Amino acid sequence: MRVLTVARDLRRRHARERHQLFVAEGVRAVDELLRSSLTIRGALVAASNTDDRAQAIASTLRGRGIPLQEVTDTEFASAADTETPQGILAIGEVPSRNLSTVALPTPLRLIILDALQDPGNVGTILRTAAALGAAATIALPGTVDLWNAKVVRSSMGAHFLHPAISCTWEVLTSFLAERDVELWAADAAGEPLAKALAPNSAALDRIAIAVGNEGAGLSTQTRGRADRLVAIEISPEIESLNVAVATGIMLYQLRP
Amino acid sequence: MRVLTVARDLRRRHARERHQLFVAEGVRAVDELLRSSLTIRGALVAASNTDDRAQAIASTLRGRGIPLQEVTDTEFASAADTETPQGILAIGEVPSRNLSTVALPTPLRLIILDALQDPGNVGTILRTAAALGAAATIALPGTVDLWNAKVVRSSMGAHFLHPAISCTWEVLTSFLAERDVELWAADAAGEPLAKALAPNSAALDRIAIAVGNEGAGLSTQTRGRADRLVAIEISPEIESLNVAVATGIMLYQLRP
Repeated sequence: MRVLTVARDLRRRHARERHQLFVAEGVRAVDELLRSSLTIRGALVAASNTDDRAQAIASTLRGRGIPLQEVTDTEFASAADTETPQGILAIGEVPSRNLSTVALPTPLRLIILDALQDPGNVGTILRTAAALGAAATIALPGTVDLWNAKVVRSSMGAHFLHPAISCTWEVLTSFLAERDVELWAADAAGEPLAKALAPNSAALDRIAIAVGNEGAGLSTQTRGRADRLVAIEISPEIESLNVAVATGIMLYQLRP
Repeated sequence: MRVLTVARDLRRRHARERHQLFVAEGVRAVDELLRSSLTIRGALVAASNTDDRAQAIASTLRGRGIPLQEVTDTEFASAADTETPQGILAIGEVPSRNLSTVALPTPLRLIILDALQDPGNVGTILRTAAALGAAATIALPGTVDLWNAKVVRSSMGAHFLHPAISCTWEVLTSFLAERDVELWAADAAGEPLAKALAPNSAALDRIAIAVGNEGAGLSTQTRGRADRLVAIEISPEIESLNVAVATGIMLYQLRP
C-alpha cells in the first residue's frame, strides 16, 4: 500500500470507518502504538526528520517489517493533522470491539459520551477512563469519531488499551438493562455528588456515567433515561466544569 | 487608541506585560468579560460578522461607550489567535493582583502551576480552581503567560473572577511560610491521595497544591520544598492523568 495516499484518505471519518484504519501522529502516539497489541499497517516519515526519538521509532518499525514510506515535508503536511508536524505517523487497524466483548468486572464503571464534540476532551476522557479503571468508554451518536487523529493524540495511548466503542442509543439501553447497570448522568440540576455517594445511598456495583455535550449538556434521551442525575458541587459564579475534569472527579469518587 | 494595532501587538507576551492588557477573543469570552468587573479598553469586530450574539455584544459595548473598531476579515485575522475567528474580540486591563491582595479564607486552597506549558491546560485549571473554591492560582516561572489569548479563552471567564497571579519561587516560599500554608505536590512517586486525606492524617486548613509540567513533572525546587508528595491512584498501564483532570480530582477531594 502507498502509505501517503492512505494516510491522506484517513483524514476523513468516512474513510476511517470504511477501512477500519486510523492514524497515530507524532513521536508519542506512534511510540505508544508500537507498545500496544494493535496491528500497524504502515508508517510515514518526513525525509527532513532527524529527531533522535523519531529515528529510533523508524528503526523499530523497519525491524518489524512494517512498510515505511519516506516523503517530503510538503507531502507529510498534506497527510498530517497537526499544524507543526513532528514528521512521523503510523496507520493502525481499529481493534474490533463492541459491547459484547467488554470484560465486566465488579464493581463496574463505564463512561458514556453523549454527543461530545471536542476531540481533545474525548481523548482526555479516554486517558482518564483508562487511568481510573473504567471498563470501557461508549460513544453515542453525535460524538466526534473516536478514531479522529486528535482524539488519538489526546488520549496519549490510552486508546490502544482501553475499549472505546461507538453504539446506538438502542444498543446501549438494551445492554444496560440486560447487565443491570445503573445509569448516572452529570447534570447541573442533579443531586450533589457527595450525597449520591453517601454510605447506604445505593448499591454502587455497576454504574455507567454519562457526560453531555460541551455546550448543550445531556441529550433529552439520556436525561430522561438516567436512573440518577448527579451534580458536582461548584461555585455558583462558574457555569460548569470542563467535561474531562468532571469525568475525572466522578470516576475517582466512584473508583472501585 | 487604534484597537487593531493594539490587538495585534498584544499577541506578544512582552507587549501584554508592558501594557498590562490582554485580548478576550470570541463571543463567549467577550460576553464573560462584559459581565465581569474588569475594565474594557476597546473592541474589534469583523465587518462581515452578522452573528446575532456578536451583534448584541457589539451593541452592549457601544452602549457603554467602549471604542469599537470595525475591520475587514483579513485585518481581524491578523489580530486573532484562533484559526476560524468568530469576528469579535475585546481588549481588557489585566487586574492588579498579587499575593498580598488575595483573600485567605479558612480552609484555604491554592493551586500552584509549576512550569505548565499548555495554554489549554492552564485555562482549564483556572476554570476548575474557580469552580472548586480555590482562593487563587499562582504561576511559577516557566509557566505559559496567564493572559495568553488561549488561556483566557479556555478559562471560560473564570479568569475574570478568580485571582491568577504570577510570582517567583522566592516570593511564593516566603508567602507559604508566613501564612503557614502546607505545600502539597502531585507526583507519581507520592503517597496515595486517599491515604493523605485519611481522617486525622493532617490538619487540612491551609493547603497549596502544586502541579508540574506536562512532560517533565515537578521542578526540582518544588519537589524538594513540598511538605507532602501525593499521587492519584491510577492504573499501572497508564503513565499519568492530564494535569487539569488531576488538579480537579485533588481540589474536589480537598474541597472546603
